[in-house]
Amino acid sequence: MPKVRVTRRVHFSAAHRLHNPALTDEENARIYGPCNHPNWHGHNYEMDVTVEGEPDPRTGYLVDLGELRDVADEVIGQMDHRNLNLDVPWLQGVIPSTENLVVAIWNQLAPRVPRGRLARIVLWETPRNYAEYTGE
Amino acid sequence: MPKVRVTRRVHFSAAHRLHNPALTDEENARIYGPCNHPNWHGHNYEMDVTVEGEPDPRTGYLVDLGELRDVADEVIGQMDHRNLNLDVPWLQGVIPSTENLVVAIWNQLAPRVPRGRLARIVLWETPRNYAEYTGE
Amino acid sequence: MPKVRVTRRVHFSAAHRLHNPALTDEENARIYGPCNHPNWHGHNYEMDVTVEGEPDPRTGYLVDLGELRDVADEVIGQMDHRNLNLDVPWLQGVIPSTENLVVAIWNQLAPRVPRGRLARIVLWETPRNYAEYTGE
Amino acid sequence: MPKVRVTRRVHFSAAHRLHNPALTDEENARIYGPCNHPNWHGHNYEMDVTVEGEPDPRTGYLVDLGELRDVADEVIGQMDHRNLNLDVPWLQGVIPSTENLVVAIWNQLAPRVPRGRLARIVLWETPRNYAEYTGE
Amino acid sequence: MPKVRVTRRVHFSAAHRLHNPALTDEENARIYGPCNHPNWHGHNYEMDVTVEGEPDPRTGYLVDLGELRDVADEVIGQMDHRNLNLDVPWLQGVIPSTENLVVAIWNQLAPRVPRGRLARIVLWETPRNYAEYTGE
Amino acid sequence: MPKVRVTRRVHFSAAHRLHNPALTDEENARIYGPCNHPNWHGHNYEMDVTVEGEPDPRTGYLVDLGELRDVADEVIGQMDHRNLNLDVPWLQGVIPSTENLVVAIWNQLAPRVPRGRLARIVLWETPRNYAEYTGE
Repeated sequence: MPKVRVTRRVHFSAAHRLHNPALTDEENARIYGPCNHPNWHGHNYEMDVTVEGEPDPRTGYLVDLGELRDVADEVIGQMDHRNLNLDVPWLQGVIPSTENLVVAIWNQLAPRVPRGRLARIVLWETPRNYAEYTGE
Repeated sequence: MPKVRVTRRVHFSAAHRLHNPALTDEENARIYGPCNHPNWHGHNYEMDVTVEGEPDPRTGYLVDLGELRDVADEVIGQMDHRNLNLDVPWLQGVIPSTENLVVAIWNQLAPRVPRGRLARIVLWETPRNYAEYTGE
Repeated sequence: MPKVRVTRRVHFSAAHRLHNPALTDEENARIYGPCNHPNWHGHNYEMDVTVEGEPDPRTGYLVDLGELRDVADEVIGQMDHRNLNLDVPWLQGVIPSTENLVVAIWNQLAPRVPRGRLARIVLWETPRNYAEYTGE
Repeated sequence: MPKVRVTRRVHFSAAHRLHNPALTDEENARIYGPCNHPNWHGHNYEMDVTVEGEPDPRTGYLVDLGELRDVADEVIGQMDHRNLNLDVPWLQGVIPSTENLVVAIWNQLAPRVPRGRLARIVLWETPRNYAEYTGE
Repeated sequence: MPKVRVTRRVHFSAAHRLHNPALTDEENARIYGPCNHPNWHGHNYEMDVTVEGEPDPRTGYLVDLGELRDVADEVIGQMDHRNLNLDVPWLQGVIPSTENLVVAIWNQLAPRVPRGRLARIVLWETPRNYAEYTGE
Repeated sequence: MPKVRVTRRVHFSAAHRLHNPALTDEENARIYGPCNHPNWHGHNYEMDVTVEGEPDPRTGYLVDLGELRDVADEVIGQMDHRNLNLDVPWLQGVIPSTENLVVAIWNQLAPRVPRGRLARIVLWETPRNYAEYTGE
């Protein structure tokens, strides 16, 4: 049976701030620049969730994209229109860079995938930069 | 001489919260839903700035797009990676809905346009909704 | 009070066929080319629904985009994943060209707009062609 | 010699219906939801065809993209403005899910690639979901 | 009968240089910056051609988009993969700024539109700037 | 530590011509078609620069995207608004096909990456074709 990948693109908006409390204010300002602004800023995140496996011969589906969207929404619902530094229990202590977010989201999503296995997450912070993670 | 329009697309990211302090918390929650979340959320804004007029026959330019971007950056620099409710002097007392933002930004930009006249601002809050204003 | 426009982009997928039963098969084939194929074909339609008016000073909203999406969904729900020639009561007898669709959709949407007035509908049939209607 | 990948994006529009005749109508409705609608619906498909290999030192081309488009058009020409369930000989008996389509298209395209080897096909069903296949 | 607008998006790639031979080299360098580079540079232009009028009740078409593309291709064919300063007879003596191009293209296209009237041309020089002209 | 990829999308516009001086004019015309036009043509190039590695636990960054953009700008600055055949020292003798460009740019960029390792370059010549290289 052929091994195929299926991707669903989802969206959320959130506030965040890049700041490491273990560093001085000067170090934080130098490392993160405007991303360190104390009054928060935010982004429209686009996220591609990719699942890999063999299509079910009975349905032609590797995974029902409606079900995949539902489990993605369980995770996204905890971030959408929220503050990533303050509001998300599983991001406590995580500096919400795109790199760290994509790994943390993977850990939430991987066990929820209803069929096949999670193969890749791509997280766009802006239309011009993104991080991706494949579980390695 | 023909009358042409020239547009420059610019970008900024910002945090905001929709909240009217003159209303009760219940009213704010009902009207704004997740956009009322107290810990802020944010967006990648895209903005199209359109200037109208006759090209200068000597240069072929209606307006130098580098100069237009510079004056747009003067205004955007006060919003980018900032909190629209807290950090922007000319947004004090303004509920930062896309509708209100596009009018407030117009008032900042119109007098700065170096040649021609400001004809339209389109402000995308997400890839699926935007507000536009033509000064009427 | 400033007059602003607010747009919500919505999406639907549908099958159709361009065919005028008052013409001969030869005329239909010549006029519509592959769009006349008898076994149907289809598109992902993107539609921008634009409402014009003054923002409510109490909320900063010209129109609640959630409410606008709800009334758009009432209309779109009759077209999405359906056959525009066979399944939509208010398209009976209408050749489903993008031009005709955008006028028919206007007539459904205009009386449902919850605040402000419908100012423009843009209907993308493919990423490279669209029709727009402003009610004139 | 370096090994490079070259991609050509192509487009087609088609109608389809997700339906397995071996299942009951109730099972089909439950599994496929609105995609099971009997009067067909359709999509604008975007497809990225990727070829891998070493550029020809004489031309700088891995593969002439015009020739690649021509062979892609041989395959696409059998699907564009057609009904994937009824009109395509090599899709008879295939449930036209994006997963199944991408594998069937691969089997048509792989032997036609004029230079290099077919390395990946990505098939977008809508701007928010796609399937990809690399021949494994 | 309702008045509708129909748009076809077309594409061409071309080289150009912004330079006014009536000015000194210093003035040209100051006004046009890197766009004045003597060895040419180039762009992928996207152009939206919009026609306005009443749909033909017999066909549902305001204008056959295939015919519109054909007349657009007559004009574009003189610019695509060419040098706008050197190769296009009707651009001789025109500084090929986006503003000037959109007016010159209008003059070529307006008399060729097969049905309805040319209502707007939008010419994207890059994904972030464009000029538009409505014949005024 | 998880291994993540981070991508920055950058942009440049340039003129070029596909031509191999070792071939006859007839061969060049046949192989390259309009891309062989002697008066140059050009493109808006989009380039995705992807770096792979482990995020720095102190900052949450795999690589500072501002620093990555700076080194990309060192390379792009030699191509932007320039002629790829005439103006770029490290492209002398290289036929500027997208395949050859992506390898040559890799060789410039790989030693400059400030943290992690260069993992992929994707170079879009137009919105519908691109080349990618991973250093193999």
